[in-house]
Amino acid sequence: MSQNWALISPGSFAILKGDNMLKNYRIEISYDGTDYHGWQRQPRKKTIQGRLERALTKIAKKNIPVTGAGRTDAGVHAIAQVACFKTDFTLTEEEFLRAMNSLLPHDIRIISLQEVDKGFHARRMALSKIYQYRILNTPDLSPFLMRYTFQWTSPLDLESMHKAAKLFIRKDDFTPFSSNRFLHPVRHVTASEIETRGKEVLYTVEANGFLRYMVRTMVGTLLEVGKGRMDPEEIDKIFKERKRALAGPTAPARGLCLLKVSY
Amino acid sequence: MSQNWALISPGSFAILKGDNMLKNYRIEISYDGTDYHGWQRQPRKKTIQGRLERALTKIAKKNIPVTGAGRTDAGVHAIAQVACFKTDFTLTEEEFLRAMNSLLPHDIRIISLQEVDKGFHARRMALSKIYQYRILNTPDLSPFLMRYTFQWTSPLDLESMHKAAKLFIRKDDFTPFSSNRFLHPVRHVTASEIETRGKEVLYTVEANGFLRYMVRTMVGTLLEVGKGRMDPEEIDKIFKERKRALAGPTAPARGLCLLKVSY
Repeated sequence: MSQNWALISPGSFAILKGDNMLKNYRIEISYDGTDYHGWQRQPRKKTIQGRLERALTKIAKKNIPVTGAGRTDAGVHAIAQVACFKTDFTLTEEEFLRAMNSLLPHDIRIISLQEVDKGFHARRMALSKIYQYRILNTPDLSPFLMRYTFQWTSPLDLESMHKAAKLFIRKDDFTPFSSNRFLHPVRHVTASEIETRGKEVLYTVEANGFLRYMVRTMVGTLLEVGKGRMDPEEIDKIFKERKRALAGPTAPARGLCLLKVSY
Repeated sequence: MSQNWALISPGSFAILKGDNMLKNYRIEISYDGTDYHGWQRQPRKKTIQGRLERALTKIAKKNIPVTGAGRTDAGVHAIAQVACFKTDFTLTEEEFLRAMNSLLPHDIRIISLQEVDKGFHARRMALSKIYQYRILNTPDLSPFLMRYTFQWTSPLDLESMHKAAKLFIRKDDFTPFSSNRFLHPVRHVTASEIETRGKEVLYTVEANGFLRYMVRTMVGTLLEVGKGRMDPEEIDKIFKERKRALAGPTAPARGLCLLKVSY
C-alpha cells in the first residue's frame, strides 16, 4: 500500500491533498490584447487566460485553472488585470514570477505575484474596476499608436463630452449600453471623466462592474456627443427609454484598457 | 495604326511615354517594423517596400518600383523614411495620399506625399540620416513597450556611455561595427548622443550613411560600456585595430527607429 503511494507522480499528488492544502496566489497581469481573442479560454484560440494556464501547466505539470477579475474582450488591453489560482508549489514568489514570465509571450507580462489568504477570489471579491479609453484626436498618422487608440481626425466638442460623461455617474440599468439582456443589469458608475493629454482624448470610468461592451458603447455615445450629433442630455433619455438603438455605436476594442481592479 | 493605339490598355500606356513624361513623387513613410522582414522587397515575405509597391500597383494598375532612402532591417521602425517613385497619375496629392493609406496595412502610414522635381532621388540625394535607439532601463515590465524598446533591467553607467558615444563622432572606417566587408566602409558620424527620458536611455546618431547593423553594433558596444565591461576609450582601439570581435554584440532590432532623412 505504501508502495502504491510512491508510484504516484509528484505532478498528480496535489489532488489527493484536497483544496485546503493548496496555496492561493494572486497575480497582476499587463497585456497588449491586440493579437488575442480576449481574456477567456477558448479551444484553438489565442487568449490571455489560455496562455496563462498553459504556462502554469508547464511549471506545475498539471492543469491549474486561472480565475480573472473579469473578462476583457478581443483586442482590449490591460495595465493591471487581477487573477488567482491555487497550487502547491515550493518555488519562492520571485522564482515563480520569473518562471511564469519566461514561459509567457512578450505581450503578456505578470507584473506581480503573491501568495494570499485562502479566501481571496479575484472575481467575487472585486469591488470596482477602472477602464480607460484613448481617442487619438488628430489627422496626424501614427502606425505606433494604432494598436492602442481609436483615431478620430475631426475636432470634438470636448465641453459637451465632459457634460455627457458626468451623466453616466449613477446606479442604473445599463442594458441600453450593452449588447445583451442580463438578469442583473444594474451597475453603479462612480467616476466618469473626459480629459485631454496632448493629442489624445481620454475617457476614464470606474464602476462596481461592467456589462458586456458597456464601456465601448458609452464611448461610442460620447463620440456622438463630441461630433455634435447628440446633446449631452440625451444620455438621460437613453436610460429612461432603455433602448440600445438610442445609444451610439460600440467603439473599437483597441482603444480600451483595464487600468485597475480594486478589492 | 491608330486603332492599335486604342487597343493598348491605359494601364500599360505609360511605358510608351518615356520616363521624362512621368511625374516624380516623394513620400514620407512611418512604420512599425515589428511584423515585417525589413524594408526591401523579397518574394513571399512581408516587407515595407513590398507593401508600398502592392498598394501603388492597385491604384496604377501596373508595377511601379519604389526607391527608399535606405534599407531598414527586419523589425526596425521608422518615424519618417523617405522614398520616391515615378508615375503619370491624375489624382491630386491629397486624393493619392488617402488612396495609398486606405490600401496599406495600419502599421504602415504615408505621412506626406508631394510631386517633386524630376531630378529628386530618395537614395542618391540623401545627405544624412538620424537613427534613435531606445533602451528601457528598468526592471518594471511592460507588454506595451516591448515592440519598441530593448529592456535592460540592471543600472547602466550613463556617464561612461555618454563619453563613449562622443568617441563615435568621426569620419572613419566603421567596418568593425558592421557585419560585412564593404568596398566603401568610411562613414561620417556627425552626432552621437546618450540622453535619458523617464526610464528610457535614448541613443541618437546622425551620419551621412550607415553600414549594415552599424547602429545596433554601436549600441551593443555602448551597452558593454554601460555595464562596466568596457572602458569608453576602447572605442578608439576598436577603430584602430579594425576587429569586429572587439566591439559589442548587435543590439536587437526592435529598439531601433529611423527618425529622419535630410536632403
